[in-house]
Amino acid sequence: MPRYKIIIEYIGTNFFGSQWQPEKRTIQDELIKAISTLTKIKTKVILSGRTDKGVHAQGQVAHFDCEPQIEDMEKFLYQMNSILPDDMSVKNIEMTEPRFHAQKSAKWKWYQYKIVSRNRRSCFDERCFYTRQTLDVERINKMLNFLIGEHDFSAFKSSQTTNPAKICNMYKSECTKSGDEYIFDFVADRFLYNMIRSIIGTVLMIEKDSLSPSKMNEILKSKDRTKAGQTAEPDGLVLKEVSYTQEIKLEAQ
Amino acid sequence: MPRYKIIIEYIGTNFFGSQWQPEKRTIQDELIKAISTLTKIKTKVILSGRTDKGVHAQGQVAHFDCEPQIEDMEKFLYQMNSILPDDMSVKNIEMTEPRFHAQKSAKWKWYQYKIVSRNRRSCFDERCFYTRQTLDVERINKMLNFLIGEHDFSAFKSSQTTNPAKICNMYKSECTKSGDEYIFDFVADRFLYNMIRSIIGTVLMIEKDSLSPSKMNEILKSKDRTKAGQTAEPDGLVLKEVSYTQEIKLEAQ
Repeated sequence: MPRYKIIIEYIGTNFFGSQWQPEKRTIQDELIKAISTLTKIKTKVILSGRTDKGVHAQGQVAHFDCEPQIEDMEKFLYQMNSILPDDMSVKNIEMTEPRFHAQKSAKWKWYQYKIVSRNRRSCFDERCFYTRQTLDVERINKMLNFLIGEHDFSAFKSSQTTNPAKICNMYKSECTKSGDEYIFDFVADRFLYNMIRSIIGTVLMIEKDSLSPSKMNEILKSKDRTKAGQTAEPDGLVLKEVSYTQEIKLEAQ
Repeated sequence: MPRYKIIIEYIGTNFFGSQWQPEKRTIQDELIKAISTLTKIKTKVILSGRTDKGVHAQGQVAHFDCEPQIEDMEKFLYQMNSILPDDMSVKNIEMTEPRFHAQKSAKWKWYQYKIVSRNRRSCFDERCFYTRQTLDVERINKMLNFLIGEHDFSAFKSSQTTNPAKICNMYKSECTKSGDEYIFDFVADRFLYNMIRSIIGTVLMIEKDSLSPSKMNEILKSKDRTKAGQTAEPDGLVLKEVSYTQEIKLEAQ
């Protein structure tokens, strides 16, 4: 059966996360409804992975099967965007090999977290975490550097997670300062539930208490969630890209 | 009595415009409430001018008088931002001379309109006008160039306006293309009600019907509102700056 790969974007604010839940407004449910309307058959839609309630995406990936083959892909994309609610859209659709699996074939994911640090808030501070706390980008990068490589990230897992696999291979863990914005980029083969938000909370804790950047390494090594900072709010987090090729090349989006 | 100048920003979507109206949510009303709460006296707040329902601002200016003098301006700014609703904020406050008048002292205003032209919509297309119509930035700049200088802008006035003065001096009227975004910048000593949105509607009409760019000049000269295009939607429009010095120097914001 022909298989299709789609790239989706959404503003997570008014969704109960990406994964289907009964009676809740979710990304997966909206995709199933839109695609099933167009294909006229109840269609299964598989996402690359879940994003939490309130987390946004600019490059979430999903796949679905559809027989007969979609004739006009451009038209299908346009129609999907007409059906989907305003806070979701499809960026791309392509036919893919039947072995392709949005979740299992993924090689790495790129997440971005944005903090705005300024004396005054602005109504244009959207999809970011606003704080008056001052931050030192050099110190932050020292902290983030400890996370690069293959580690057991148990210290940054959610207490709710039941998945026993805690090892992630972090390829990129970096902060860039631009004016009063601090952009955090994380690329890894996989992420634990709440992992980035726990790392951000830990960065904020270390900065606030003026601890040594090596505190991050200590917490990582402890594998103890109680040592890490609070889980930062979801609004600053965006899933930027899910890649199916090994090479890591991040494109400005 | 000490006079203060404040610079305000707002997301206009959920306001009935800037100017006070009974029983309506307006920018002026929210400012009066916030300042009166802090000064503990019912305070009059004068805006540089009105922005329509749904129009945004990054540099709206207002003034108010307050006795006794505000002791800690930094604190006052912080407190105002705590009181104001999420879709409004104050960028700056300063004491000014008593002769300063937010409306009457203004030398020029800078408005920006954003159009996104792309085959597919995106949920991140915010505060812009989205269209699938293709646009030619060179042709658009030929049209906009006719508007520079002192003209009677009656062709682009709202039918609702009662103000008899129709002459505006346009200092800048220009479009810049960046990817699929078309940014229109207009700087003039004054603007008529709905003027920019009518100009944008006229640009879209000329492009859609593949008319000569000089059609813009013809419409301007006609002083006839029925010749111009439809009023474009307010969501793409932002008041960027109100200036009280003659020199025109636009800063990236």
